Amino acid sequence: MTATRDIDALIELMAKLPGLGPRSARRAVLHLIRKRGLLMTPLADLMSEVAASARECLNCGNIGTTDICDICESEKRGNGMICVVEDVADLWAMERSGVFRGRYHVLGGTLSALDGVGPEDLSIPRLVDRISAESVTEVILALNATIDGQTTAHYIADQLEGRVTLTSLAQGVPIGGELDYLDDGTITAALNARKSL
Amino acid sequence: MTATRDIDALIELMAKLPGLGPRSARRAVLHLIRKRGLLMTPLADLMSEVAASARECLNCGNIGTTDICDICESEKRGNGMICVVEDVADLWAMERSGVFRGRYHVLGGTLSALDGVGPEDLSIPRLVDRISAESVTEVILALNATIDGQTTAHYIADQLEGRVTLTSLAQGVPIGGELDYLDDGTITAALNARKSL
Ligand SMILES: [Zn+2]
Ligand SMILES: [Zn+2]
Repeated sequence: MTATRDIDALIELMAKLPGLGPRSARRAVLHLIRKRGLLMTPLADLMSEVAASARECLNCGNIGTTDICDICESEKRGNGMICVVEDVADLWAMERSGVFRGRYHVLGGTLSALDGVGPEDLSIPRLVDRISAESVTEVILALNATIDGQTTAHYIADQLEGRVTLTSLAQGVPIGGELDYLDDGTITAALNARKSL
Repeated sequence: MTATRDIDALIELMAKLPGLGPRSARRAVLHLIRKRGLLMTPLADLMSEVAASARECLNCGNIGTTDICDICESEKRGNGMICVVEDVADLWAMERSGVFRGRYHVLGGTLSALDGVGPEDLSIPRLVDRISAESVTEVILALNATIDGQTTAHYIADQLEGRVTLTSLAQGVPIGGELDYLDDGTITAALNARKSL
């Protein structure tokens, strides 16, 4: 028991958000209560709206408010390129960079025999269908550089081989990155992909 | 732009919570959207309710849903002891330890000439009034072991000297430590070993 039943329940729900433990949930709720007019009420209203309107794009898995997302609807984005990502957060990261002008395919995870995640769970069959439906010529596999990510990338590459050009994001030292902070795998990859100056 | 206008606005509001930056706000919103039925809608509803019902106790500054909080209303808690804390989070930390059975006085900060925070801003005059109104015999100054916290404790001690027994949490509170970071056992030990000022 910290406060009233409602406030305790609110802290408990907030603590279920990724990145928030019980202590930071308490801090967040106190902050919300202090700013209840300016922050808590608008946040509650917006959350209700998004909970009612948000849905996954039936084509690519992106999150939006329509059955087919803006990117899939846009003629301009139908340039024959699909970037395959694990998660909507990765799609958002790509969009923030502003450099990719094609469409996406969100897997929603990686293949995992251990967790029983198969190709259908990751909408890989739908990705295969999209190749001809959207006249795709290049698939960029932008999966995480983890073992599961790379296993999944290889599986998809096998499925699409001979039908499209397959590429992946270059691995290397991030801009502004310090060698001392990078793991060995990244340094190895960066060295192997070294370029002439 | 990451997603729709509503989702972007929601991420922006979430990023205003303490402990959440833009990246963790995006992660939290994606998590909420995935669990919109089970988590997002209940959270939005509860937030609306708390935003409408939460208020500060007119007597002690605790947060509850009534003008006078449960602790101030309870006859049992009127044992002649008041524990003075900086923040409602500190009050909650004390309550979780379960060892203190008196009432509280929440200052809402510390005295600060620099930030223009005076005794009235911290409801110190109301604390002085409560001494006779509630027949208080002991005031425990449970302020943070920071310079501002200790300055404030000394100011309050000066105001109340000769009228009540003044004590402070002594053992277990690390130098520069804040109550809300301490485990229950440390708080219990510090309260049990409190010393006269
Ligand atoms: Zn889409
Ligand atoms: Zn009260």
